[in-house]
Amino acid sequence: MPSITLADLCRVLKQPIPVDGNRVIAGIAALSDAGPDDLSMIASDAYLKQFARTRAGIVITQRKVKLPAGSKMILPVDDVEAAVADVLALFAPEPQRPPAGIDPSAKIAGSATLGEGCAIAPNVVIGQRTALGERVRLHPGVVIGDDVKIGDDCEIYPNVVIRERVTLGKRVSVHAGSVIGSDGFGYRWDGKKHAKIPQIGSVLIEDDVEIGSCVCIDRAKFGATRIGAGTKIDNLVQVAHNVEIGPHGIIVGQTGIAGSARLGTGVVLGGQTAVRDHITIGDGAIVAARSALANNVPPRTTVSGMPALPHRQSLREQAALRRLPELIVQVRKLQEELDALKNQKK
Amino acid sequence: MPSITLADLCRVLKQPIPVDGNRVIAGIAALSDAGPDDLSMIASDAYLKQFARTRAGIVITQRKVKLPAGSKMILPVDDVEAAVADVLALFAPEPQRPPAGIDPSAKIAGSATLGEGCAIAPNVVIGQRTALGERVRLHPGVVIGDDVKIGDDCEIYPNVVIRERVTLGKRVSVHAGSVIGSDGFGYRWDGKKHAKIPQIGSVLIEDDVEIGSCVCIDRAKFGATRIGAGTKIDNLVQVAHNVEIGPHGIIVGQTGIAGSARLGTGVVLGGQTAVRDHITIGDGAIVAARSALANNVPPRTTVSGMPALPHRQSLREQAALRRLPELIVQVRKLQEELDALKNQKK
Amino acid sequence: MPSITLADLCRVLKQPIPVDGNRVIAGIAALSDAGPDDLSMIASDAYLKQFARTRAGIVITQRKVKLPAGSKMILPVDDVEAAVADVLALFAPEPQRPPAGIDPSAKIAGSATLGEGCAIAPNVVIGQRTALGERVRLHPGVVIGDDVKIGDDCEIYPNVVIRERVTLGKRVSVHAGSVIGSDGFGYRWDGKKHAKIPQIGSVLIEDDVEIGSCVCIDRAKFGATRIGAGTKIDNLVQVAHNVEIGPHGIIVGQTGIAGSARLGTGVVLGGQTAVRDHITIGDGAIVAARSALANNVPPRTTVSGMPALPHRQSLREQAALRRLPELIVQVRKLQEELDALKNQKK
Repeated sequence: MPSITLADLCRVLKQPIPVDGNRVIAGIAALSDAGPDDLSMIASDAYLKQFARTRAGIVITQRKVKLPAGSKMILPVDDVEAAVADVLALFAPEPQRPPAGIDPSAKIAGSATLGEGCAIAPNVVIGQRTALGERVRLHPGVVIGDDVKIGDDCEIYPNVVIRERVTLGKRVSVHAGSVIGSDGFGYRWDGKKHAKIPQIGSVLIEDDVEIGSCVCIDRAKFGATRIGAGTKIDNLVQVAHNVEIGPHGIIVGQTGIAGSARLGTGVVLGGQTAVRDHITIGDGAIVAARSALANNVPPRTTVSGMPALPHRQSLREQAALRRLPELIVQVRKLQEELDALKNQKK
Repeated sequence: MPSITLADLCRVLKQPIPVDGNRVIAGIAALSDAGPDDLSMIASDAYLKQFARTRAGIVITQRKVKLPAGSKMILPVDDVEAAVADVLALFAPEPQRPPAGIDPSAKIAGSATLGEGCAIAPNVVIGQRTALGERVRLHPGVVIGDDVKIGDDCEIYPNVVIRERVTLGKRVSVHAGSVIGSDGFGYRWDGKKHAKIPQIGSVLIEDDVEIGSCVCIDRAKFGATRIGAGTKIDNLVQVAHNVEIGPHGIIVGQTGIAGSARLGTGVVLGGQTAVRDHITIGDGAIVAARSALANNVPPRTTVSGMPALPHRQSLREQAALRRLPELIVQVRKLQEELDALKNQKK
Repeated sequence: MPSITLADLCRVLKQPIPVDGNRVIAGIAALSDAGPDDLSMIASDAYLKQFARTRAGIVITQRKVKLPAGSKMILPVDDVEAAVADVLALFAPEPQRPPAGIDPSAKIAGSATLGEGCAIAPNVVIGQRTALGERVRLHPGVVIGDDVKIGDDCEIYPNVVIRERVTLGKRVSVHAGSVIGSDGFGYRWDGKKHAKIPQIGSVLIEDDVEIGSCVCIDRAKFGATRIGAGTKIDNLVQVAHNVEIGPHGIIVGQTGIAGSARLGTGVVLGGQTAVRDHITIGDGAIVAARSALANNVPPRTTVSGMPALPHRQSLREQAALRRLPELIVQVRKLQEELDALKNQKK
């Protein structure tokens, strides 16, 4: 980790540099873990108890949080999250990347082309007619098929597999163990067996997409499975054939998106969500974790549950379900009272 | 992609060849994406609007769909899905396969045996006494343990791991990143720690099974985890130790099957399904996506939900749940009316 | 498999050795599969029918199970599971491990250090300043980043990726295809795009942890994602950044644990569970399979459902839901009866 001084920190946070600007900050840590040379942060009143007890030497604080009077050095900001992101960049160690050049153990087809400054690590395999842009970094054990296109500044982490005819835009990151371009899951019962439906399409991933570890994105039956620019996909996500995800989506871990589903711009899917095949999720829709989407979702709505409903309805039903056992008892008593009343009448 | 003419297409679809049979078809695409040289398809009335607007030059149509009069060239068939599958095979590019022979970077144990026509790609590792049938294709980075048997015409995609003593039948495909034969998850609390229960069994995969990407199939505690002939498994599926899946099953993505569960013949599990350990799912049972099976499922039944119930009951309960919040209100009013009535009587 | 005699078996089970102690036992199998030379077991009355029909030559039996009189050889024990675990160890074939030494195809950075007796298989890559303890076994295709620490007697299975700055204690096993130390999933919308929040922390895995296949454990935003000593993690599990799992946990397959969640000592999460970010699960809590935890769980409680509730409440609600459709009918009839009563009064 680089050596960071208080002055460096203040410069990043656009704060005045104090007299002890040469003071070295050891690291960044949660309030409960930080030592006297560490920087920590408090974003809301919820952490006031931890603030009282912290040993952190310096604390980035949300301006609105009412802190007790005291001697701790604080750096008040409007947006703690943004400030911390900037500070993390300051403390970030140099990322580990294969050095530019081609490791002698890499197997690169003669007809493949590599742009300037590519870094090809040990045991990488690159197929025929595949074209890499400039400064593409392929970590060890990456396998790239034939006729693949990878844009400038992509980073492909160890043991990723990118199958034939897949296209990646610029600045795409794919984390370790992911598989892009396997056959879509399509069969037809022919009376005796599940006959495979050829999956002759491809996968098209636009610029600035980041894909987590052990993610599977299948190739289309025909045409392309598409991931829009700037979309971020977490670990262990399944994207089936012919899915189209718009730009700037957020797909949280272990979500599964079934064939030909279409997600608009800026859709957020919480973790472990299931999206049915062929449905459409409108722009800006937000789906709570573990939801199961069986129908189209209108733009800019928040849904939750299984099957997913508008979030308020979902909450109301959950609350009602909490009361159901007592409701059954209440109805039984009502019936008894009513029967008593009727008997009285006779 | 090979160059396909209208005549080629008509031959495959067993239709008369028109005078312009030499016309080249550029590709196959959805109605909304197709251009004037493309082939498209319409399988049901649901797509009539898209049909009206399509630029597709030729459209395979389900015979029963009532199309508006017009000039588009149509090819009516009884089963659009089957026709499209045949046509996709026509358009399918040559699959990328390692060339027959052994790449010099492959490490093959001296006691391993390879049938005729095997294709062993770079960085493949094959263990001792392992026997490959004829025309087995191992893509780059595949690791095969000791004492493995792989039948004729299997295709193992990049970076797949097949651990020791696993057996694969003929024509099995395993897509990239999958792991077959890891230890089953078995421990016993010995008073101080979770002591590992040795997992000494194996995995037995029958002919014509296809396994997706990042699938995990664990070895049995003893005996074998079994996948029946012709079963198809989608991406990111977990098959625990001692599971037995019958022939011709369909296991959709991200499903998990717990230890010693038994699936009969032709069982369909929708995506993200959970199957409890030691339960039995009867022949031909169909399980809706995202179901959680906690009990045995009789043959030829359709179940859904969590916990899974017969599908009609599940739908009825879902519908009832939608009405629960108003039911609570209704019961409160009933109570009030009844109380009023009782007061009147006094 | 080693050749095991009845005498070997009796020694392990601390039973008297019979006169035919030299009899060779072919293997261990379920009651329904065992042949006359096999050992089988019966742990409860539930398997009496299978016991009656088994061809097993010898059966380990739970002492309390009332067996019919008969000629089968039985070995009664107090804890069948423990006995079987011991016997499995007896029958276990020698595990397949890379031989001690360094395969010439491995790429080991000059500044990496390896303890005595390490076994480095083909195509392994080890980064700069990485330190391996004694007898560490790296199977083929393993990629280890820079500045990683791996304790004595760790076993890392094929194609695992351990990214830079991760630390593993002693006797840690990581099964094939898992990825440890990928970036946590953290972005901040900056008005135009999801800006990446640097993930500069690490992953710290303590002694005796076992991690299944295709598991993803992300590095912390800062500080460390921690897995406590003796915890066992099944396949396809997602552990997000800054999660802390205490010692002796059991995390069953396809579970997802969101960022900064804290699990106490001895927590059991059933398969496909979802744990919300930032919540705390108390020591000894047990979570049923497929639960969704949205709130803190007190120590030593059992919870289930979505959202997870105390297990008895969850069961009560499920039972109530089963009765809801009839309840709706009952309330409608009540309303009719009440209306009739009111009309009568007029």
